[in-house]
Amino acid sequence: MNFSSKLLEDAVNEFSKLPGVGQKTALRLVLHLLNKEQEEVELFGNALIRLRKEIKHCQVCHNISDNQLCNICAAAKREKEVICVVEDTRDVMAIENTGQYFGLYHVLGGLISPMDGIGPSDLFIDSLVQRVATTPVKEVILALSATMEGDTTLFYLYKRLKDFHVPITTIARGIAFGGELEYADEITLGRSIVTRVPYQTSLIK
Amino acid sequence: MNFSSKLLEDAVNEFSKLPGVGQKTALRLVLHLLNKEQEEVELFGNALIRLRKEIKHCQVCHNISDNQLCNICAAAKREKEVICVVEDTRDVMAIENTGQYFGLYHVLGGLISPMDGIGPSDLFIDSLVQRVATTPVKEVILALSATMEGDTTLFYLYKRLKDFHVPITTIARGIAFGGELEYADEITLGRSIVTRVPYQTSLIK
Repeated sequence: MNFSSKLLEDAVNEFSKLPGVGQKTALRLVLHLLNKEQEEVELFGNALIRLRKEIKHCQVCHNISDNQLCNICAAAKREKEVICVVEDTRDVMAIENTGQYFGLYHVLGGLISPMDGIGPSDLFIDSLVQRVATTPVKEVILALSATMEGDTTLFYLYKRLKDFHVPITTIARGIAFGGELEYADEITLGRSIVTRVPYQTSLIK
Repeated sequence: MNFSSKLLEDAVNEFSKLPGVGQKTALRLVLHLLNKEQEEVELFGNALIRLRKEIKHCQVCHNISDNQLCNICAAAKREKEVICVVEDTRDVMAIENTGQYFGLYHVLGGLISPMDGIGPSDLFIDSLVQRVATTPVKEVILALSATMEGDTTLFYLYKRLKDFHVPITTIARGIAFGGELEYADEITLGRSIVTRVPYQTSLIK
């Protein structure tokens, strides 16, 4: 592109480094910001700079936090003996949004993926083992994606945790609510028959 | 959404004010920035803040510029007696990218649109009339979009400029290169027959 201004070019180039943002989209967003008040643009830029500079990770569960201890780990009302292991902070937000979970979390910071060069030592796995070894834990829930990387990580975590004789569970897999059988993929449908559960009227809403 | 951090929430909210960016996309972009080096995020934030603070508009053509006079108006080699009138700086970039135009520009800053409350006085129309009245001008090219607002603006500019006896032209409209006749809309095809032009072998590449 043929920019009339170096400032404009810099801003567009910075924006187009974001994932999924090309040069045309970047230009559109930058011109949008140019039409805003100067204070608004400063709020935007400073929010990003402050975020990167001041954000912390919870010392216990490694979730993104404003303090040394995140809101969830610091809350008095949570069940402190249940740990739900997730890939990243987005999963914590998704589970919190369900309103169905009241224990603590452990954010791994990724999944084991030899293809991307991510091994167990790149993730917060040792500190999970440490938590299970040193604090009273009643249950470890492994809530990982049903992908190759998720399954690899699941198996590795199981091997590391099994000797502590703490119940290890995974989230239920099967046909989604509202999903029709004929459109479900074969593996999901097959597994959901094999892992069928007793009918519970208490779960019907 | 249920944010674990106020800093994160602020950054996501600022991002989701951008056009076409929802909360989920904003979160994805913010988490991407969190994984970058602090210097990179500062470059990004500061590029936006500096842009809004330091950007100028060319005193002659109102294009976005780093200086009082934009690169195009300041260039020695351009044909200074031809003015191409466009809606905004994106159109300047699009025409510059063709490499087919060597005159100057005049950026209106929008189009007349009574529906959006934009009248002639909100645009840089008086300064265009001033340029035509006080500097030697050989031709004014009106390169506006073929929309209702574009046509309204075109007609208004024609009325304001016609008494100066300067040739006023508009960019050619018709079937796009590579376009097939059977898929062209009726108005474009009809007009392109009415405004047919002599066959010129010199334009064949």
